[in-house]
Amino acid sequence: MRLYHGDILFAPRLGELTALPGGYLAVEQGVVQGVSPHLPEAWKGCPVEELGRRLLIPAFNDIHLHAAQLPMAGLGYDGTSDEWFSRYAYPTEQRYSSDLPYAREVNRDLIARLKENGIMRSVIMCATGSESTRDLMEQLMESGLGAFVGKMNSDYGAFGEAQESHQDSCAQTLELISWARGKSEKVKYILSPEFIPAVSQEMLTFLGELAQKEGLPVHSHMSEGPADLELVAGRFPQEGWYGPVWDRFGLFGQTPTVMAHCLYVTGEELELMARRGVYIAHCPNPAQNVPSGRYLSVRKALDMGIPVGLGSDIGCGHTLSMLENMVLAVQGSKMLTKEKPLTLADAFYLATKGGGSFFGRVGSFEPGYQFDALVIEDESLTRHRDYTLAERLQRLVYCGDSRNISRRFCGGNEVFI
Amino acid sequence: MRLYHGDILFAPRLGELTALPGGYLAVEQGVVQGVSPHLPEAWKGCPVEELGRRLLIPAFNDIHLHAAQLPMAGLGYDGTSDEWFSRYAYPTEQRYSSDLPYAREVNRDLIARLKENGIMRSVIMCATGSESTRDLMEQLMESGLGAFVGKMNSDYGAFGEAQESHQDSCAQTLELISWARGKSEKVKYILSPEFIPAVSQEMLTFLGELAQKEGLPVHSHMSEGPADLELVAGRFPQEGWYGPVWDRFGLFGQTPTVMAHCLYVTGEELELMARRGVYIAHCPNPAQNVPSGRYLSVRKALDMGIPVGLGSDIGCGHTLSMLENMVLAVQGSKMLTKEKPLTLADAFYLATKGGGSFFGRVGSFEPGYQFDALVIEDESLTRHRDYTLAERLQRLVYCGDSRNISRRFCGGNEVFI
Repeated sequence: MRLYHGDILFAPRLGELTALPGGYLAVEQGVVQGVSPHLPEAWKGCPVEELGRRLLIPAFNDIHLHAAQLPMAGLGYDGTSDEWFSRYAYPTEQRYSSDLPYAREVNRDLIARLKENGIMRSVIMCATGSESTRDLMEQLMESGLGAFVGKMNSDYGAFGEAQESHQDSCAQTLELISWARGKSEKVKYILSPEFIPAVSQEMLTFLGELAQKEGLPVHSHMSEGPADLELVAGRFPQEGWYGPVWDRFGLFGQTPTVMAHCLYVTGEELELMARRGVYIAHCPNPAQNVPSGRYLSVRKALDMGIPVGLGSDIGCGHTLSMLENMVLAVQGSKMLTKEKPLTLADAFYLATKGGGSFFGRVGSFEPGYQFDALVIEDESLTRHRDYTLAERLQRLVYCGDSRNISRRFCGGNEVFI
Repeated sequence: MRLYHGDILFAPRLGELTALPGGYLAVEQGVVQGVSPHLPEAWKGCPVEELGRRLLIPAFNDIHLHAAQLPMAGLGYDGTSDEWFSRYAYPTEQRYSSDLPYAREVNRDLIARLKENGIMRSVIMCATGSESTRDLMEQLMESGLGAFVGKMNSDYGAFGEAQESHQDSCAQTLELISWARGKSEKVKYILSPEFIPAVSQEMLTFLGELAQKEGLPVHSHMSEGPADLELVAGRFPQEGWYGPVWDRFGLFGQTPTVMAHCLYVTGEELELMARRGVYIAHCPNPAQNVPSGRYLSVRKALDMGIPVGLGSDIGCGHTLSMLENMVLAVQGSKMLTKEKPLTLADAFYLATKGGGSFFGRVGSFEPGYQFDALVIEDESLTRHRDYTLAERLQRLVYCGDSRNISRRFCGGNEVFI
């Protein structure tokens, strides 16, 4: 057993911070055994990693991002959503799918940035290409990071031509699943239909059966704007909305499921998500860069018992910094919802345990949790006066950046940048 | 004459970018002589600074921030505005006013961060203390940066006790003005009443006469929320609003004037500001951290001909990064106004020439402008494909940070961090 001695801070529940100044955290075989404000008798004699006045917090988790879009983050936000897709998203994803040396570099860069920003686990949608997806999974396996990764399925012409044929899409998906099976504890395949308007009924059937048969998780987008809602209602008049369509095909919580955005969800859809434990990847940043006129009431979703985590949504979101994404989540809830706004502690919960729980016991320092942690060197932010641990978290999130992250751990292993 | 050869980008007008890939910029005695896409005959033989593929852009200007509040940036945003004042702002400012060694460290840190973030000119409100204000001016004079700095005048009990006596406030203001007179071309005194609710009628009279007599500029807050509007209407029932009160006392554009926030201004106030050239320091960040229910329609103000620049409003704003403040300005205009949103080029104009013009010919690369410039090393942001200069600006603002600023110039002199 190994001990870490420093200023420990984590959010075991929404809105609740556990702070142990000068506390101890015990890890065995990569799993947290417990925390204590003082050195307990039973832990005496164990080797101690001395962190001094540094903060020790759970690492961040990003439960929605697009690997292929990294090179276009920041671009095209002045235009419409349609322009953004046609000028930036589709051509960028096509190149990623068809140019493997290029995709390798993008993947390498993405992993470097995930590490830099202290994101130890992520849910990543690639483009339709299968080789670039496999390359990302391989590189992730070498990196020490955890992730769910999937090739995007997009066999139906939502806004023009389909990106791939149904047959290719199915064959490549099966091939990747079989390639990835059993290869890694931390990096796994996730079924990734682009969104309902971009997949055929046959694809929904295929993916739903596959999810069931292989116990595979599901990652997609849902109810982002009026245009895609209309397409769903047009093609599935009986159901009319995303939720019941996903549900009919077994892609809505029958296996672990995360849906990004969910801006226009109905009360009934939310109730179904709560019952089924379907995760919402709350992505404040894209909703502010390319607003669709609606914003997710995170508080309401949380109050209903829906699991929620944060997603950067690179590249409609511009930053992998979970610090910035936390700020945007708090600001967005203050400006754009009528509910009690998210506090910083709430946002910290979302960025750690909220999204982390999609990966198992991840995102907290309670006993039995994976030791996914960041050591925070915040001397530059705290030199002028005394700050409580909760205030140091505020300083870090609002005023700090990745330069304040000095060490990273994933599942007990140190991850080096 | 000295030439800079690189990828030159600036915003001579709102919404307009001038881009010169591999262009030349000529500087003589700290003043821009012109730019050219190729090396003109007349400039041949001049020494050339080779910037390679780096970007050369005008430096940033922050026209509203509170020096004393640097150590509390990021704190208390979950509470109400009143709690923020009583728990954070007032005690923090009081310590800055009364503890000179502490204030010196805060000032040193502030200047380091201004430099780091490429802010070459700023309009800074200190707290009521006079020694800490003088210290900041002294340190700024040594730094090479430009600034308007003022001791805050606050002799009326807006929300409790007045922060200082009327006599002390006047005496210290006069003393500082006389001390600063003629000391520096770049660092100058600015009259800084906290806001109308916190100054006596006598103070308004005193400052108005002083502005007139000494030709001194004015910096204050205006129309931030319903509570301060009510206080103004209660004390000045005849005028009812900030604008006419400032105006009666000669503090509304009779000399160069910058007013922060202006969230609840009336159409008549805006018209008066346009006529008088009163600057608005648009501070998107505090309006998003502690929303008051209203947001400035920057587009409308600009369309009316009011000069607008960006303010970080440290510490109700959390970041001195003008990159982040540009993003927040664009996002805020998209989410919270009904006007045509600000584009990134608009925000870049506000952060450079918009605010820079408060300091004279600052913030552009047109002939006659001070050579206030940043060299941007954006290789890390542009390695995966080709980007136009306008796209590189988007990548810098959305995805970059101060690590991408590799050199800084103010009035032709290089500023080292």
